[in-house]
Formats: sequence, C-alpha cells, structure tokens
Amino acid sequence: MTFDYFFRPEGIAVIGASNDPLKLGYEVFKNLKGYRDGTVYPVNVREELVQGVKAYRNVKDIPGRVDLAVVVVPKRFVRQTLIDCGEKGVKGVILITAGFGEVDEEGKREERELVEIARKYGMRIVGPNCVGIMNTHNDMNATFIMNAKKGDIAFISQSGALGAGIIYKTLKEGIGFSKFVSIGNMADVDFAELMDYLANTEEDRAIVLYIEGLRDGRRFMEAAKRVTKKKPVIVLKAGKSESGARAASSHTGSLAGSYRIYEAAFRQSGVMVADTIDEMLSMARAFTQPLPEGKRVAIMTNAGGPGVLTADAIDKYGLKLANLEEGTVEELRSFLPPMAALKNPVDMIASARGEDYYKTAKALLKDPNVDMLISICVVPTFAGMKPREHAEGVVRAVEEVNNGKPVLGLFMAGHVSEEAKEILEANGIPSYERPEDVAAGAYALVEFARAKGILKE
Amino acid sequence: MTFDYFFRPEGIAVIGASNDPLKLGYEVFKNLKGYRDGTVYPVNVREELVQGVKAYRNVKDIPGRVDLAVVVVPKRFVRQTLIDCGEKGVKGVILITAGFGEVDEEGKREERELVEIARKYGMRIVGPNCVGIMNTHNDMNATFIMNAKKGDIAFISQSGALGAGIIYKTLKEGIGFSKFVSIGNMADVDFAELMDYLANTEEDRAIVLYIEGLRDGRRFMEAAKRVTKKKPVIVLKAGKSESGARAASSHTGSLAGSYRIYEAAFRQSGVMVADTIDEMLSMARAFTQPLPEGKRVAIMTNAGGPGVLTADAIDKYGLKLANLEEGTVEELRSFLPPMAALKNPVDMIASARGEDYYKTAKALLKDPNVDMLISICVVPTFAGMKPREHAEGVVRAVEEVNNGKPVLGLFMAGHVSEEAKEILEANGIPSYERPEDVAAGAYALVEFARAKGILKE
Repeated sequence: MTFDYFFRPEGIAVIGASNDPLKLGYEVFKNLKGYRDGTVYPVNVREELVQGVKAYRNVKDIPGRVDLAVVVVPKRFVRQTLIDCGEKGVKGVILITAGFGEVDEEGKREERELVEIARKYGMRIVGPNCVGIMNTHNDMNATFIMNAKKGDIAFISQSGALGAGIIYKTLKEGIGFSKFVSIGNMADVDFAELMDYLANTEEDRAIVLYIEGLRDGRRFMEAAKRVTKKKPVIVLKAGKSESGARAASSHTGSLAGSYRIYEAAFRQSGVMVADTIDEMLSMARAFTQPLPEGKRVAIMTNAGGPGVLTADAIDKYGLKLANLEEGTVEELRSFLPPMAALKNPVDMIASARGEDYYKTAKALLKDPNVDMLISICVVPTFAGMKPREHAEGVVRAVEEVNNGKPVLGLFMAGHVSEEAKEILEANGIPSYERPEDVAAGAYALVEFARAKGILKE
Repeated sequence: MTFDYFFRPEGIAVIGASNDPLKLGYEVFKNLKGYRDGTVYPVNVREELVQGVKAYRNVKDIPGRVDLAVVVVPKRFVRQTLIDCGEKGVKGVILITAGFGEVDEEGKREERELVEIARKYGMRIVGPNCVGIMNTHNDMNATFIMNAKKGDIAFISQSGALGAGIIYKTLKEGIGFSKFVSIGNMADVDFAELMDYLANTEEDRAIVLYIEGLRDGRRFMEAAKRVTKKKPVIVLKAGKSESGARAASSHTGSLAGSYRIYEAAFRQSGVMVADTIDEMLSMARAFTQPLPEGKRVAIMTNAGGPGVLTADAIDKYGLKLANLEEGTVEELRSFLPPMAALKNPVDMIASARGEDYYKTAKALLKDPNVDMLISICVVPTFAGMKPREHAEGVVRAVEEVNNGKPVLGLFMAGHVSEEAKEILEANGIPSYERPEDVAAGAYALVEFARAKGILKE
C-alpha cells in the first residue's frame, strides 16, 4: 500500500538529529527512539553520536535501508538534503523545516523546486512547515511533540500547533488516535491522497480533518466521495466567519474561500461537518459502535436534569426520542421504583444501581421502536454506590441482547466517573462527559448510516 | 441580611445524622465537620455518638443556638421534625428528604403543609428533594456530595444530580464556586429570593442558574431585573426542545413552558442565556475582568489555527475583530519575526516567548481600536519553551498598561498548559481551553457592559 513508508517504514533517518535540547532535531530523534517497526538513524554533519547513538554525516552513509527521512535541517540545506535522500533511495520525506510557501512567492517557488527534485527520485514529501507524523500503533512518533494516546481515530491537521494542542488536550481527556499527520504546506502530499490511504487501513476507524483552506477542492471532494463509502470522514473547517477566513488565508497561504461553498461540497461528498474541536472528536469516537437503522433514541438516566439536556441536544441534531412500546413501559414499571419516570427519557432516579442499569438497558434495546440507546449516569457518590456497577450493567445488557443497536454512554462527573467510563470504553462503548458531545456521537452514527443506505426512514 | 442563616449559620443541626455510611445522613454530617463559622450538632434518635460526636435525640435538646437544620430523616418524620425545629428557634431548614411534590398531588399537598408549619415559626425551607447547600468561603458543605472548588460563582440548580455532576466535573477543570444551592422542589425558597440575596454579597461575583421550570415566572423576572443591575446572571434552561420540555415537566412537576417565551423573558430581564453547561460556566468565569467599552476584540496567538477558530467563535457571538491602528502594526513589526502575521489575529508564530507575549499584549491593549484582548497559547513543548513565561508576559503587560480593558486567556494544551493557566487565573485573568469558551466569556462581558450602559456602540 502506497504510503506505508510514511507510517511503517523499515528504516528512518532523522536528518538534523541533535544533541542540543533546544533544537527540534533533538525532540524528533528522542521521540523516535521508541519506534518498533524498524531502525532509526541520526544524521548530523558534526557529531559522532547523537543521544548516544552512532550518527551519520550523510543519509547516504547509512548502511541499511531507509524508507523515511525526517528532515529538520536549516532551510538552506534542505535542497541538497533532498537530493541525498533521493540518491539513498528514500521513499518518503517528512519536511519539518519551515520558511517556504507560508512566507512568500519566492518560498512557493522553492517549494515547487523541492517537489520536482522529489519527483525525479520517486519520493513523496509531507510538509514543509509541519510538525510531523505519528502512528501510535507501532510507536512511531516522527514529530517534535508528545505521543498521542493510542486509539483508532486518524487525524490530519493543516495547523501543526492546533494539532499539537488537540493531542495534548486529548491526553487529559483519554481520547486516542491511530495516526496524526501534520500536513503543513501540502507542497506535495495532500488531504486527498492521505484519505485514500487511510480508507484501506485496519487500525483507522474514522478520519478527522482540520482544514483551513484547500488548493484543489475538486480533488479533495472526489477522494472524499470514495473514502466516505468506506469510513466516516469528519471535517472541522476554520474560517467560517469572514474575518476568520481572512486570517486562515494569511496563515496557510491558501485561499480559505467561502465557508458556505465548502460546507455544501463537504456534504455532497459524504463528509460530516463539525463546528468545534470537541464536536469533531465526539463524532469520530462514536464509530466503535454499530450503525443504527433509524434515528429514534432511547435515553436512560439516574437523574432527570441530564436526561432533559440530552433530549434537547439530540433534538438539535434532528434525532428523535423513541416512543416506547407499552410492553417496555410495563416491564420497566415491574422493577423500577414508583418515582421513576417510565417515559423516554427513562429516569431510574438516584437510587438506581447496576442491576437497574442492566434491566433498563435490556428492556430498551429490545424495544422495536428504539434504534439507539444513550445511557446516562451522574455518578452518585453516596450510599455506597459503585459507579463501576452502572457501567457493568450496561455492558452486560448489550452483550445479552446483542441485536446490533448502538449504545453510547454519558458519564457526567469528572474524575468520579473515570472508572465507569473506562469500563464502557474497554467494551467499545464510547463514553462522553457532556450532553452535546453524546448527541454529536449519536448524530454521526445516524449520518453515516444514512450515507451507507442502512437508515430506514 | 435575610438568608445568612442558610449560608453562615451560627449553629447547624443535622437531623438524621448517621453512623451508617450507606445513609445520606452519614455523608451530610461528615461533610459538615469542616464548617468554620459555627458548631455542628448531630441529631439521632438512637445513637449516643455520631461519627464520634455527642448526638442529641431531638433538635430541641441542643444547648446552643441553631440557625440551620439539615433534615435527612425518612419522610414520615419530616412533619414533626419541622415542628421541633420551629420550637427550637431554627431559622432555615434544608429539607433533603424526597417523596413530596415531585411524586404526586398528595405530595404537593404535604409540601404546602410543611411550608405552613415553617411560616408559623418564621422558618424558611430550601427543598424538599434536594442535595443541600454549600458555601465554599466558610467550608460549609451541607450536602451529601463532595466539596466544590472555592471560587466566586454562585450556582443554583433545580436538578440536584446535575448540580453534583457539574461540581464534580469542575473539580477536574479547576473551576470554582462560592456557593451551591440545590433548590429542589422550591416549596418555599425559590430562585427569586436567592438571587436577591446573592445580589448583595461580597464573595459572589456572578450567578448561574440551571432551570427546568418556574412556577412564578413574573416573580422570577422581577427579581432578575433587580439583580442584573448589580451582578451578571446566566441561565441554562433545560427543555428547549418539545421532547426535552415534556421530560423536564415530568421531572420537576413544574411546567417547562415554551422555551421561546422563557428566552424572551430572560433577555428582557437582563439575564444571559447559555445553551450548554460549559457555555454557562465560561460566561460566568469572565467576570473577574473589567467590563469592555466596546466589542472590538484583538486576538494574539502563537499559532494560526487557534487564532482562526477563535475569530470564528467571536463572530458567532456578534463580536468584531478590531482593526489595528497603523502605529500598532508598526510597533509589532519592530520586534516580531518576519513570518509573524501583524493583522488581527496577530500570529506571533511558534517561536514566541514570554517577551513577545509581553510586548504584543502591551501594544494591543494600548491600541484605541481595541476594547478587549484574547491571548492564545498553544503551549509549545519544544526548544526549552517555558509556558509560564507566556502567561507571565501577559500579566506584566496588563499590569503596566492598566487601562481597564478586559483580557481573557486561551491556553489549549491540557495538562501541558496547567501551570500557565494557573498563573493567569491567580492574576484574575480567566483562562479557557476551547475557542468557543473564551468567546462565550468575551460575549458575556460585552452583554453585561451593554446592560450596565458602559458599552459605546
């Protein structure tokens, strides 16, 4: 598969690897020390050893095979470095060095020249002006930022810094990625080709893109149409507002264009559009679940308020509260306390324990009017309640009923709900912390089911 | 001041205090052990000692003064307990016990009877069916949930569980509260009276309300009109959607009513309306800053992407990007690197250090076209960058310029930005983690400035 040399290269050269902790080449080489699928070689014109590893003066001096070169040399050395890489037989170059197309017309010209050199040798370039590439599934961190948490979302970002910010924030939130690509100036490799590659990989379940501006919209949309037949693609497009669009255009040097045109084109290509970083991630996280056959949602909760907020949130996305069958209501009545609300949202009230979660989830999943279940828990910290029981109850119900209806969790209590959240996640049930996030997840499942023709309207 | 007995009582009786960790009365008494402004007495009909403290069989047996009684006895004992409280001279009762108006008409009748008893003795009731009251400024936690982080936001919630969920989630996020009131069924004390009390306190800077339904809308709106002349009030109203409204009405027994009508009435009363929990909190957090005289925002950033997303987010709230004066642009040019973007949003690029934050903030705050500053940092983790410098640079600039323009921070990097965030917060500069949140904060300042007649349009 074409881009394997970017994501699972046999040999990696870090050209500009450094012993100076203030240099990016220091961080990149340090981060790559954990790489498991091949050898990593430091290249440095002056040093014998880089971070204790034998260094080479030139990539061409490396005895072994080198599929990927990460280039962090000063700008004036980039051209010759690429020629050396080409002669060595390198297949992919991650060009971290900045100062090209993002600066001025001269920089754009230089960029084109680099691409021509690469073409000559059959090499491909990611960048320039990027943070690098990560593949969490083989511990390849070819960037100068911290490792992302391992997961199954592939993330391509046109802003390296924003990408880094998202990687860091998701470490705190426990959201994982399979791959991260900081795509930089897109002088050569662009969103379209990367998407096409990611459409056929095993470990990437959903693709999220942070886009500021596209150079070739048609090419993107054609790729998106192909890819969204296989995997969900979710886009956060910066530059919605006029002033934001102006800023985006000055930032990337690409035309931000009218947001409306972008949005229409995205939708036509089957791409889902997110408004915020969290909406984008919430959507992507849902795809560990099967797709629903309809948009009728059942909500179960141990507290009225969060149930109401979630009902509001799913309504905003055009989803519906399921009308429960009479039989379901009767069944719920048989074991829930008299003060429980038996209509959807089903409020099991604060006394609900694991057994109530289990029985209620089971009853709701079996209801033919229910296409999808959201299980809410405001984790109780009193009366010896064990939040893990609530999560386990839901997991047990899903396993027993096993009828392919998606289930999403909403555990709203910060650190207090962490254990319960982890139990759900370990069982493939995405667990959110905010009503609007779980609703975004439910919406994404419905939209992708619609695109795949699974939805019975 | 009228409700001091709820928030700084001289003596507190916990009626139903327990040695059994599975009972709410156990948690409440345990939580109140840290109370600093008076004595806390356990009342239990059977036990000599509760959690090692001498217990009384009846509130009337307590030798000292009791301003506040927290009642957690079974429902059948509530009536007599209230009479005992009345005879003891108790002024405020927090009635945690549930099973009244939220259940049925009979419950509503019983509730009214309790209020009549209270009236007879000049007592006031918060509840029933509530989680209790917290005052973080004297460590009074008269609830069965964990302590909130200390802060200056007063929070009244009509859903106890949602309130608890918010307290817990904000512990993780570092957002603090001055007071928390779980208002329960509002049989007696309601939002209106509490707001009137909170309008005149020192330690409550902003008031946030989670509302499902109001019994007396006019009364609420009149109070809101008075209070919003002094302090910002921000409401999250559940039941926006038709299905959400139905659920809310079944949850609290109060009519949820049409959201449109509520929203219009809120706005007429000067109340700000939030769509989500995070929007509500983000708005409230802004008020450690002075109010702006206009809605022209300057954005400074070390990364283009977040600047663009923030420009988009403020646009959504109707705020404007300031057009910088030529002199400001020239000044920025004198010290920022050639690749920096000098137009608003000012992108100082990734190499920016504390000194750049300092000088840029200073230049932007001095610009007469700028009403407000948002300082963004995607915290860099390379090249020996010290995020604290970035925060300190902003703080120094604000201190030096000192011209009363509000400044908000956006530090987008999870744990990595925590130290920098804390530095800003310690200096009264609210620091957010998401573009939409900092925009909500900016919007709230503008709206309150408008309500106060400070805004020059």
